[in-house]
Amino acid sequence: MGGDYGPSITIPGVKLALQNYPDLFILLVGRQESLRPFLQKYKLENHPRVQVVHASEVVEMDESPASALRGKKDSSMRVALNLVKEAKAQACVSAGNTGALMATSRFVLKMLPGIDRPAIMYSLPTLDPISQQTARVHMLDLGANVDCKDEHLFQFAVMGSVLSSQVDGLASPKVALLNIGEEQMKGLEVIKRAAQKISECQALNYIGYVEGTDILKGKANVIVCDGFVGNVALKTMEGVVRYIASHVKLAFNHSLFTRLCGFLAWPVFRVIRQKLDLRRHNGASLLGLKGIVVKSHGGAKAEAFATALGEAFHEVKKDIPNKIHALIDEILGKEDVR
Amino acid sequence: MGGDYGPSITIPGVKLALQNYPDLFILLVGRQESLRPFLQKYKLENHPRVQVVHASEVVEMDESPASALRGKKDSSMRVALNLVKEAKAQACVSAGNTGALMATSRFVLKMLPGIDRPAIMYSLPTLDPISQQTARVHMLDLGANVDCKDEHLFQFAVMGSVLSSQVDGLASPKVALLNIGEEQMKGLEVIKRAAQKISECQALNYIGYVEGTDILKGKANVIVCDGFVGNVALKTMEGVVRYIASHVKLAFNHSLFTRLCGFLAWPVFRVIRQKLDLRRHNGASLLGLKGIVVKSHGGAKAEAFATALGEAFHEVKKDIPNKIHALIDEILGKEDVR
Repeated sequence: MGGDYGPSITIPGVKLALQNYPDLFILLVGRQESLRPFLQKYKLENHPRVQVVHASEVVEMDESPASALRGKKDSSMRVALNLVKEAKAQACVSAGNTGALMATSRFVLKMLPGIDRPAIMYSLPTLDPISQQTARVHMLDLGANVDCKDEHLFQFAVMGSVLSSQVDGLASPKVALLNIGEEQMKGLEVIKRAAQKISECQALNYIGYVEGTDILKGKANVIVCDGFVGNVALKTMEGVVRYIASHVKLAFNHSLFTRLCGFLAWPVFRVIRQKLDLRRHNGASLLGLKGIVVKSHGGAKAEAFATALGEAFHEVKKDIPNKIHALIDEILGKEDVR
Repeated sequence: MGGDYGPSITIPGVKLALQNYPDLFILLVGRQESLRPFLQKYKLENHPRVQVVHASEVVEMDESPASALRGKKDSSMRVALNLVKEAKAQACVSAGNTGALMATSRFVLKMLPGIDRPAIMYSLPTLDPISQQTARVHMLDLGANVDCKDEHLFQFAVMGSVLSSQVDGLASPKVALLNIGEEQMKGLEVIKRAAQKISECQALNYIGYVEGTDILKGKANVIVCDGFVGNVALKTMEGVVRYIASHVKLAFNHSLFTRLCGFLAWPVFRVIRQKLDLRRHNGASLLGLKGIVVKSHGGAKAEAFATALGEAFHEVKKDIPNKIHALIDEILGKEDVR
């Protein structure tokens, strides 16, 4: 029901995902009467792998998490998370209110033992400027925790590393902390303490600090930061992409000649534009919970929503929460021995 | 003597600035024997507005601020700042070690009364996506203070507002705080308290929070943040620009046809590239000191170094430190009356 477009994009998104993943089964949670016209439109009424679960309420995009949590026990979000809790579903995907999804997930599913707080993780495309190899980097936290202690950053490192190793198939993902590199400042005390903790952990492949300039260079597979800095960095990136896109548009609209150049170069620009869509991996993972929750960008269209469904699907296949649990257990167990 | 290239770029930079500003007088501080060949090369030996001041030592780019401050009393940086302190120069411009410049400036020049810490301020180009108007935004702090209290952010707002009003000639510059906009998080406590302080100050035109996506949109004339977040945001922007530039290069190098398109569109790309050079306003101001200090980017070439000299020149003409002092006095005076 959520996001900027509701079922008008989530339902065609589901249709695409069903085509992409033959063993995907979808429980569509929401107001039956709102879903029906779109199910008809996209011919999903009698699809063998689609089932509607009615929920009478909807969490508004600007509603406070507290109000959603206390006031809307029959919201589509709450009902979907209950299905995960009761093991009737293996993952919840929502394009709705991030804060409400975070708070409700935490309340309904609970945290994994050894993890204090959930984190929002996102993957961004990378390009190594030397080898020109493209890959992706997982960055967390991107806004769930504005104020983090060193142990939280350590837990983020563990969760990011598990996800990267499982989903990207890396034996030993490179984990870095986001910092300001200039020697004289050496960054915040909390980051220095987190660096100590992460570097001492044998289960993690810690490569040190990275700076803002390094995020998209592919130096690390996992970049850890607090939610405030991560959110500013992510949004700043989007701002720069838009700034550049506006300037490119202006420059090519300048004269008849530049328009002709732009017209000729159109296929090239299409390729570039795709590379610049930093959100193209749509689907932020809410990690640290006893269950899989994926947040689709509110402005996502059908194809992007299908990508978020795919992200959840992969996390289910790889059993991410249990893998995180196992690694944390192993690390804490070892620590106890010392 | 500083920066990645030393006198080989600072001296031609000086030559350009002397041409741009007919009433600019330059004291070149550094090792006489290192400067001489470049003075000869650029025919500045007998220039009536150039004078060499010998300093026997040089602060290395990777030297700790403490070592520069304690160990190098005759460094070019220290001697140049002493000239400002003794009113023999009206501003110091350096391409050297930022941390050392910050620490030495603070030690030699001292802080303005009412200002606790210096801040690094930078201007970035902006483009309003609706009106397509270009302008610039002053952002501070960009790395001098990794951990800020609300009163520091308030002081940054005052200093940025003074600079923007004087240098950009704005009657009432729009001041914003950098935050993460999502409702449920509401950002850090320290930012909320700073927002309270700034909004209550009649001398400031506070417009509220901006997000990372808004920085280059020209919503605000001054954006205030702590040095950690500011530094990450600035470097993240540079990283995105480089990422995009690499992809554009790759895409146009793809085939003979795309190369032809790239060749045709070359003049357009030159215009765009200029817009994307976020550091083109080269010259970060160290604000809050009893004197004018401008830091040129270490990698700046001659033209960019001349821009930093111009930035210092404008700040001298506008008497920035005294204007900051006057506004802080006015604000604190008013506060005392209450």
